[in-house]
Amino acid sequence: MSEFKRVDGGVTAARGFRAAAVCAGIKGKTTRPDVALLASDRDAAVAGTFTTNRVQAAPVKLCRERLAGGAARAVVVNSGSANACTGPQGMRDAERTAAVAAEALGVDVRTVFVCSTGTIGIPLPMDRMEAGVREAARALSPDGGPAAARAIMTTDTVDKQAAVELRIDGADVRVGGMAKGAGMIEPNMATMLGFLTTDAAVEPAALQDCLSAAVRESFNRITVDGDQSTNDTVLLLANGAAGNRRLGALHPQWAEFAGAVAAVARDLAMKIVADGEGATCFVTVAVTGAASNADARAAARAVANSLLVKTSWFGGDPNWGRVMDAVGYSGAEVREERVDIAYDEVSAVRGGMKDPGTPLRALEEALRRKRFTLTVNLNIGVGTDTVYTCDCSEAYVKINSEYMT
Amino acid sequence: MSEFKRVDGGVTAARGFRAAAVCAGIKGKTTRPDVALLASDRDAAVAGTFTTNRVQAAPVKLCRERLAGGAARAVVVNSGSANACTGPQGMRDAERTAAVAAEALGVDVRTVFVCSTGTIGIPLPMDRMEAGVREAARALSPDGGPAAARAIMTTDTVDKQAAVELRIDGADVRVGGMAKGAGMIEPNMATMLGFLTTDAAVEPAALQDCLSAAVRESFNRITVDGDQSTNDTVLLLANGAAGNRRLGALHPQWAEFAGAVAAVARDLAMKIVADGEGATCFVTVAVTGAASNADARAAARAVANSLLVKTSWFGGDPNWGRVMDAVGYSGAEVREERVDIAYDEVSAVRGGMKDPGTPLRALEEALRRKRFTLTVNLNIGVGTDTVYTCDCSEAYVKINSEYMT
Repeated sequence: MSEFKRVDGGVTAARGFRAAAVCAGIKGKTTRPDVALLASDRDAAVAGTFTTNRVQAAPVKLCRERLAGGAARAVVVNSGSANACTGPQGMRDAERTAAVAAEALGVDVRTVFVCSTGTIGIPLPMDRMEAGVREAARALSPDGGPAAARAIMTTDTVDKQAAVELRIDGADVRVGGMAKGAGMIEPNMATMLGFLTTDAAVEPAALQDCLSAAVRESFNRITVDGDQSTNDTVLLLANGAAGNRRLGALHPQWAEFAGAVAAVARDLAMKIVADGEGATCFVTVAVTGAASNADARAAARAVANSLLVKTSWFGGDPNWGRVMDAVGYSGAEVREERVDIAYDEVSAVRGGMKDPGTPLRALEEALRRKRFTLTVNLNIGVGTDTVYTCDCSEAYVKINSEYMT
Repeated sequence: MSEFKRVDGGVTAARGFRAAAVCAGIKGKTTRPDVALLASDRDAAVAGTFTTNRVQAAPVKLCRERLAGGAARAVVVNSGSANACTGPQGMRDAERTAAVAAEALGVDVRTVFVCSTGTIGIPLPMDRMEAGVREAARALSPDGGPAAARAIMTTDTVDKQAAVELRIDGADVRVGGMAKGAGMIEPNMATMLGFLTTDAAVEPAALQDCLSAAVRESFNRITVDGDQSTNDTVLLLANGAAGNRRLGALHPQWAEFAGAVAAVARDLAMKIVADGEGATCFVTVAVTGAASNADARAAARAVANSLLVKTSWFGGDPNWGRVMDAVGYSGAEVREERVDIAYDEVSAVRGGMKDPGTPLRALEEALRRKRFTLTVNLNIGVGTDTVYTCDCSEAYVKINSEYMT
């Protein structure tokens, strides 16, 4: 984010977007907000990426359909129920939610997107949902971004927002975003919702390329527990309110704009990992020297998802043996006697064995940092990959054994 | 095991085998035994299966070499150090361990196998190891099986033994075994050692087929945490002391004998899962109706290894949504609207949705059982697979964050 000017406002940092949050009672008797509405004052171009899970929630199916239409005016998001595994009724409920929002906003129903997050298998309480959507429509505000970011939280402990500003064609262009996700997080976008907005005018096909690339380097590089969800969705709306010349791959500032979108996505993704359920540290797992990038990715994921590695981080134990073990079963080509492992700048393993020059104390100090990088160099080829993750604490188990059906 | 007569004695239930355990100090200053020695009074045919991890401990490499020789007289097993990621020194230490045992027993060094389990990356304290092996050789006893079973434990809370007797060619034949393993357990044999003995005479090639089949249906069907280890080894020694006509695939009682080996292996594997680190329940995950057996296996593994599913079991929460989710990302072909899920006899999901006929209370009751079967019917084809696993509790995290390097 350093190269971009940060601004406040999250999804409503970009001009022409309004948002609101209400407590509709989807989560039961609580005062926590659970319905967010994001609206664009004009038709926005829209891009989306979705979970690869074969079991997909009704709102994911709806969003995929809507995406083909090419235009977005609003996104309804609820927490408390995923509206997944809810069959034909779930689809009807998602459609009805969109219809209620469209009516309240006076826009075409085909431009209204719906996203849900929460428990799987429970039908949406539609009376409360409808009332919530109508209330949210009345409450829309150009300052509503932060409230919306709070309404989409489930087990998140903090809301996740980001926004940057850059100058394109003499116009100030903004890219904002919000996300939720704390558990069931795994590369390929798991229980994770992300919403990006920009007031730039962007060609639709270029917008999709831009989002896909940004997601690949952000939300698809994070893992908390290796579980992929049924509901993951990232949407990017571009409404053109900034008045720039339409951006596309041939625009001289295209790379700069794409970089801003990537920066916001990355910032949101990092915030998700940092808020991983029960997490006490943020770990970057970087694999280099692999036979291929795919091998590097397999090794990085195996390490980042190994329960034994994650619990050793929680214990402050530089247990590189478990890292060697995970790399060994990752499926990547590994020549044991070539593997080097380091925690930040501290070498743990040289040539597949304990680095004799490093005292245990130095490794333990590296692990005491709240953020550190674990580097695994396979020393075979030039493949690289990086994954962001966190440790696994007793609190993770507590949270997930008590988060009841 | 029901069809076989159970007997006591573990690995020394079979005639012509002796065992011993000593406290050599490999685990540091403790009175816990950490070196076990198993010896056959005569050359035994031997079969083995090993970890598929690309990082393999020195003793695994040694055992693979020895296996080609075809004969076994002894197996040395130590706990406290895995002798993995220890480079050329590790190989020398494993060879030296075998040599010391061969000398003490007066047998060919090529018939001595070595297995290690414990922390990765720490060289064996060879002075203590050698003294321990010599002491164990002096202490060998035909009643030493139970003591040996205790000496190979690491985080195990109970020793794992089994033995059965059957009649072949008018002779009483016995098959015994011991195993260790509680964490880093995953199909494909993870931090798991298993030793089976029989006094039957068996053709070497048939013995290997018999062991491979038994392992496929036992140790390769269990998972605690999805981590595969560097040291997994299962050995089966057949010394012919029972005096039967040599068993092979054409012997009329071959299937019966192979069944006995499979029963012992299965019993040991079940004991490993039941003793899973921090486990409070034993779960059989059975997938049926998959497009292929491979699909069924992928789905069963995804469910059995899902942290979210495992923590929900710990919480007593029949969270079938997390099961649907795991099946969805398993890679198996899934048609959401066809999936049925049941806990024991209690239907949770019909056609991809909550079974409306089942009250939550009934599901919760099923989960309160210490052993239950989760059945997932994909209703697509005829592929089936079964995996045995346990829940994931806060104690698992505690154990593995405190088990220091």
